[in-house]
Amino acid sequence: MMVTLRKQYVVSRPVYSEDSLAEDHEKIHRKHKALMEHVKEYLTSCDANRAKKAVVSVLPVIGWMRMYRVREWLLGDVVSGVSTGLVAIMQGSFPVLSLMVGAVVTRLVPEDGPHANITDFEGLTQDQQRVLVASSVTFLMGIFQLAMGVLQVGFIVVYLSDTLVSGFTTAAAVHILVSQLKFVLGLSVPGINGPLSMIYTLEKIFVQITSTNICDLVMSIVIMVVVFIVKELNDRYRAKLPVPIPIEVIVTVIACGVSYGFNFEKRYDVEVVGTMVKGYEPPIVPSVQVFQESAAEAFPVAIVGFTVAFSVAKVYANKHDYPIDGNQELVAFGVSNMFGATFRSFAASTALSRTAVQESSGGKTQVAGLISAMMAMIVTVALGFLLEPLPRSVLGALVIVNLKGMLMQFREILYLWRRDKPECVVWVGTCLGAILLGLDFGLAVGLGIELLTVVFRTQFPRCSILANLPGTDLYRDQKDYPLVCEPKGVKIFRIPSPIFFANIEFFRNKLVEAVGFNPLRVLRKRNKALRKIKKLLQKRDPGITENGLEDLFWTATNDPEENTEVLELPADLKELPFQMNWSAELPSEFSVPTVNLHSLILDFSAVSFLDISAMKGLKMALKEFTRVDVDVYIVSCDALIMEKLHSCMFFDDEIRTSMFFPTLHDAMLDVLEKHQDNSTGSVLKDTKL
Amino acid sequence: MMVTLRKQYVVSRPVYSEDSLAEDHEKIHRKHKALMEHVKEYLTSCDANRAKKAVVSVLPVIGWMRMYRVREWLLGDVVSGVSTGLVAIMQGSFPVLSLMVGAVVTRLVPEDGPHANITDFEGLTQDQQRVLVASSVTFLMGIFQLAMGVLQVGFIVVYLSDTLVSGFTTAAAVHILVSQLKFVLGLSVPGINGPLSMIYTLEKIFVQITSTNICDLVMSIVIMVVVFIVKELNDRYRAKLPVPIPIEVIVTVIACGVSYGFNFEKRYDVEVVGTMVKGYEPPIVPSVQVFQESAAEAFPVAIVGFTVAFSVAKVYANKHDYPIDGNQELVAFGVSNMFGATFRSFAASTALSRTAVQESSGGKTQVAGLISAMMAMIVTVALGFLLEPLPRSVLGALVIVNLKGMLMQFREILYLWRRDKPECVVWVGTCLGAILLGLDFGLAVGLGIELLTVVFRTQFPRCSILANLPGTDLYRDQKDYPLVCEPKGVKIFRIPSPIFFANIEFFRNKLVEAVGFNPLRVLRKRNKALRKIKKLLQKRDPGITENGLEDLFWTATNDPEENTEVLELPADLKELPFQMNWSAELPSEFSVPTVNLHSLILDFSAVSFLDISAMKGLKMALKEFTRVDVDVYIVSCDALIMEKLHSCMFFDDEIRTSMFFPTLHDAMLDVLEKHQDNSTGSVLKDTKL
Repeated sequence: MMVTLRKQYVVSRPVYSEDSLAEDHEKIHRKHKALMEHVKEYLTSCDANRAKKAVVSVLPVIGWMRMYRVREWLLGDVVSGVSTGLVAIMQGSFPVLSLMVGAVVTRLVPEDGPHANITDFEGLTQDQQRVLVASSVTFLMGIFQLAMGVLQVGFIVVYLSDTLVSGFTTAAAVHILVSQLKFVLGLSVPGINGPLSMIYTLEKIFVQITSTNICDLVMSIVIMVVVFIVKELNDRYRAKLPVPIPIEVIVTVIACGVSYGFNFEKRYDVEVVGTMVKGYEPPIVPSVQVFQESAAEAFPVAIVGFTVAFSVAKVYANKHDYPIDGNQELVAFGVSNMFGATFRSFAASTALSRTAVQESSGGKTQVAGLISAMMAMIVTVALGFLLEPLPRSVLGALVIVNLKGMLMQFREILYLWRRDKPECVVWVGTCLGAILLGLDFGLAVGLGIELLTVVFRTQFPRCSILANLPGTDLYRDQKDYPLVCEPKGVKIFRIPSPIFFANIEFFRNKLVEAVGFNPLRVLRKRNKALRKIKKLLQKRDPGITENGLEDLFWTATNDPEENTEVLELPADLKELPFQMNWSAELPSEFSVPTVNLHSLILDFSAVSFLDISAMKGLKMALKEFTRVDVDVYIVSCDALIMEKLHSCMFFDDEIRTSMFFPTLHDAMLDVLEKHQDNSTGSVLKDTKL
Repeated sequence: MMVTLRKQYVVSRPVYSEDSLAEDHEKIHRKHKALMEHVKEYLTSCDANRAKKAVVSVLPVIGWMRMYRVREWLLGDVVSGVSTGLVAIMQGSFPVLSLMVGAVVTRLVPEDGPHANITDFEGLTQDQQRVLVASSVTFLMGIFQLAMGVLQVGFIVVYLSDTLVSGFTTAAAVHILVSQLKFVLGLSVPGINGPLSMIYTLEKIFVQITSTNICDLVMSIVIMVVVFIVKELNDRYRAKLPVPIPIEVIVTVIACGVSYGFNFEKRYDVEVVGTMVKGYEPPIVPSVQVFQESAAEAFPVAIVGFTVAFSVAKVYANKHDYPIDGNQELVAFGVSNMFGATFRSFAASTALSRTAVQESSGGKTQVAGLISAMMAMIVTVALGFLLEPLPRSVLGALVIVNLKGMLMQFREILYLWRRDKPECVVWVGTCLGAILLGLDFGLAVGLGIELLTVVFRTQFPRCSILANLPGTDLYRDQKDYPLVCEPKGVKIFRIPSPIFFANIEFFRNKLVEAVGFNPLRVLRKRNKALRKIKKLLQKRDPGITENGLEDLFWTATNDPEENTEVLELPADLKELPFQMNWSAELPSEFSVPTVNLHSLILDFSAVSFLDISAMKGLKMALKEFTRVDVDVYIVSCDALIMEKLHSCMFFDDEIRTSMFFPTLHDAMLDVLEKHQDNSTGSVLKDTKL
C-alpha cells in the first residue's frame, strides 16, 4: 500500500543566489589534500592492526573453518566432492589455459626441428623438457598472480560487470561444449588455439562427421537424457530429498561396468580412459631460462587464468549471495600455482565443467573441493584401474549436460535488450568476441566495449526542458506532465550528465534545439545589420530615418561600459552612438531573427564533473546567449565544480558568479522579479509572496 | 559587483513523496521511441532541403568566398602565401605520413630482392614502380577518407579533446624538430619509422655528432636568432605594422644569395636544395592490385593523415574561435587525395611546419593556401633554379623557429596539473605515447587514456554527507559550512555520479564509512545473538530472564508479516515469538553493535544513469539497511531511472516506491514527522509549520 503524506511543507526564506547565500551562510575554506598527502596518510596508517587484517584477508580459510555448519553442509559437500572428483580425474585441465601453455611448450620444444637454446634442457628427454617448460610457465604465472595480489591490483575485477561475466562465461561454456563434441562423437580432432579456433575445430569435426562412432553417440545421448531428467527431479523435489541423487556417480559406475562387460573398447572401437600414470613424481626446479623465454606469454596466461576463474566464481557468488575479494583470489592462485609447479602440476584456473558439477550436485564449501582432490589422489594411486574401461564419451556427455545452467544465460540477451540496450551490446559483444577470437582477446574486446558504454551513456543522455508543477516549487520534464507552468520568455534546460570533451557540442546543439534559435547566428545577423546601418549613417542619407530606422535606436546609452560588452562587434562599430532594440520590428531588409527569450536557466544538478576541455565550449555557449541579451542562470551547481571554475578563470566581465543560484525556484523567482511586467504563469505567483 | 537579492521565498505545499506527488500531479504515460522508429524517422526526413544543406556543408568554399573581406585579409594572405610557398617547395611532405607510405613502398618494391607479384609493374623502372605504389596508396587513402566523410563518421573527432590535441601536436612538433636536426647539423640520417624511431634517430645523430657541418650549424643558429627576434617584434608592434615583416622570405633570399656568392656547396660541403624536377608528368592510373596488397596499411594512413590534420586545424580553430566540421574535412581530404593521386601526388595531410609559418606570417583564409600553391607551381616550373643554392639547413632552421608556438604548449602540463590531474595525465600520456611509439600508436594510446579518465571520474567521485543550512530548505556538504543542522539519527548521503558496475562497491564502502557501521556485519551479529537466545530458550533455562534478557523482548509483534521481513533469519528462527529491540543495552555476551541511525537519505540528484549490473548491488545495499531497521529515503531520482527500476523489477516487499521523495526537504520533513519524540535541530523546525 502506498502511504499518502499530507503534512504541510512551508518554507519562508530570502530568495538566494549563490552569492547572497554565501553572505548569509559562511563557508569554511577547505584545503583539499594533495595526492602526496593521501599517499603519506595511507602509509602512516599502516599499523599492526591493519597488517593483521590483511593477513586474515589473504588466508580466509581461518575464518570460514570456524563457521562450518557440519549438519547442514557436510553431506552435500561429500556427495558433490565425490562426483566432481570423478569428473576431475578423467578430464584434462581448463582447455583454454591448456592451449595457451601448450603454445609455449610447442614453441620452445617443437615436435621436430631444433628446440630453443636452453642449457637446462641438457640430458632431458623431449617429454621431460616439455614438463619442465609447462611447470616453469606455471610457476612464473604464479609469481605474476601473487605479485598482483600483494600489490592489491585485484581491484581490476570491478570492471568485470555481471553482464560482461555472463556473456564471457557463456562463451566459455560454448568453447567447452565444442571441445567435448569430439568425445561424444568419438572423433579425433587436434587441439587448436588462437582466434577463430572454434570455427576450425567445428570444420574439422564436420569434415569427418561420417566417421562418427555410433556407440559413443547413442551412449552419450542416453546419458544426457537420463542425467538431465534426474537433475530436473532433483531440482523439483529439492525440499523432500535429504540429498540430491548423485546421478553422475551412478552413471559413471554403470558405464564402467557395461563398457568392461561388453568390452566396448575392442568391440565398438570406443575410446576409453585407458591406463593412467600411477603414483607421484619427485619435485622439479623451475628453469629461470624458461622464465626469460616465456615472460611475455606467461603474463596473459596469468591474467586469463585468473579472470576466467574469478568470473566463474562471480556467477556463483551472485547466485548464492556471498562476496569475493579479487586480491585474495590472486594470492590464492599465485601461491597454488607456484607450489603446484614445483610438483610438476599444470597451470591452475577454473574448470567450468567441474564447478558446474560441484554446484549442481550440492557442494557448499571448500570441503567439497578437498574431497574431490582426495578422490583424485586415491584413484590415481590405487583405484585408477577401475576407471580404465570408462568411455571418454560418457565423460563428455556428463560435462555437456552440466553446462545447461551456463548456456541458459543466453536468455539474458532478450532480457537486457528490453531493459538496457548498451548492456545488451556488452553481453553480445563479449560473448561473440570470446567465442570467435578466443577467451583472451574476447575478454579484451568485452572490457573495451563495456568501458565505451560508460562513455556513451554520459555522452548522449536525454536532455529535457523543465517546467513548474503548479502550486509547488518543483520542476519536472514538461513532456511528462500535462499541467505545467512555463512562464513566457523563460526556458529551463536540464543537463542530465557530466559535461566533458565528448559531449559539450552535443549539449550546445540540444540547447539550440530547445530554445529554438541559434544565438551565434542571431548575433552574426545582428552584426551584419549593424554594419549596414553604420554604412547608411556614414552616407548621411536623410532618407534613412523616414524608412523607420529611428525605431531601432535607443535615445542614449546610459552605461557605455555595458554597451561594449553586449555584442562582440568589430572594433570600428563600437563608436555607434546608440544601442539597438532588437525586439522591435525591423525593416525587412534587415533579416534579423527575433528572440523571444529573456532568461535561460540551466539545471546543473546532474553535472557530476566538468573537464577543462569542455569548459571553453561551455563558456562560449553562455557568452553567445548573454550577447543576444538572454540572462543565463545556472542552478544546483556542485561545490567542487564551482571551485574548479574559479581556479580555471572561468569568470570574467560577462560570465559572473551572480548567475549561479542554489535552486531552480530561486532562479525562477529572480527571473519573475526582473520581468514583472511580462505575463507570468499565475500559478507560479501562488508560491511567491 | 555582487548583487544581493533580498526578496522573500515562500513556499507552502503538502510534503510530497514521489507517490503522493503522482497522485496530485498526473503524469503522462509516454511511450519512448524504439531504435527502429528513430531510424525510420531519420530516413523519412531526408528531403531535398536537407540534401541541399548537406551539399553546401561539404563544399564550404561557396560560403566563405562570398564573405571574403578584401581590404582586411588580402595583404596578409599574400605575404603569408608567399612565405609558406617558399617553405613548401623545398620541404618534403608531412614526415610521419611519408614514413608510413614509404614502408608500403619498400615492402612492395624493395631496394634489392624480388618485388611483389604485381602485373601492373611490368615494363616499369623501379622508380616508376615506386611512384605507382605511392600514388595508388594515396588514392586508396582518399577513397577511405571520402567514404568516412560520406558516411558521416567525422563525429569521431569529438573524442579529440583540446587536451589530447595539445599533447598530440606537441609530440608532432617534437618529431618534426628531431627530423630537422639532421639538416641543421648537416648530417645524413636515414628516415626511420615505427615505435621508438625517434630514439633511434637521435642515437644515429649523436653517434656522428662530431661530423657536424659547422657552416650549417652557425648559419642555422644565426637564422633562428634573427627570425625569432623579428617575429617577437612583429608580435609586439602588431598594431603599428601594416603587415608583419616577411622575415622568412627575406632570410631565404639572403641565404640563397650568400650561398651562391660564396659557393657554400663546394667550399663548405653544405647540402643545398639542388636541381629540382621541372614541369609536370602525365596523369597515372592507380593500380587495383596495389589496392589489394596495401588495404590494411592504407586505412591507418587515412586515419592518421586525417587525425593529424584535424587536430592541428583544431588548435588554430580554438585560437581564432571558428568552428570546423569533421565530415567536411574528411570529404575534402578524400577528394583531394584521389584527385592528387591521379597526378602522381603524395598522400596529403597537414604540414605542421607550414601551417605554423602561414599562421604566424599573417595568413587568414584559403587564399593564402592558393597563393602558396601557385608559388610552388611557378617555382617548380620556372624559378626553381634560383633556389638551387639554398642550404637545406636554412629551411630546417626556419621550420624549427616556427615550431615555437607548438612547443610552448609544454607549459600546459603545469597548468593542467594544478587544475585537473586526470587531464594532465591525458596530456602527458598522449604526448609521451606519440613521441615514443609514433603518432599512430600514440594517438591510440591517448584516446584510450582519455576514455579511461571519463570512466575513472565517474568511478571515484568525492562523496559527501549533507546537512541542512539553518532556516532554509537547502542542504549542503557539512564539511563546507560551520553552522549546519544534522538531526540525530539521520544521515544524508549524496551520490555525486552515475552508478554503474565499476563503482557500486565503491559507493557501498563509502556509505558504510559515512554511517559508521556495516549493516551486513550488524545483521550477522544480530542473527548470531538470536540463535544464541533461541538455544537458551529451547533449554528453558529459568536463569535467562534474571540475566536481563527480558529487556530484549517486545511484548508482542503486532504485524507478523512485517516481522518476517525485518531480518533475513534462517528459516528455523522465524518462529521466535518476539521481536528484538536492538537499541536496548544488550548483555555483554551478545556483542551486537548498536545502530544509532534511524533514517538514511540518499541524494540521487547527480545519478545520471544506473546500469543493470549495479542495480543488484544497490538493492542489496538498501536491503541491508532496511533489515537493520534503518528507513531508507531516495530523493531527486531521475524520471528515466525510476522507469528503469520499474521495468527491471527493482521493487518488492522491502524496496518500495514509497521510499522515493522529490526533494531532500520533503524527505527530511517526513523523517522528522516519524521521529517527533527525538530531539531534532530546532532550526529545522523553523521551516516547518
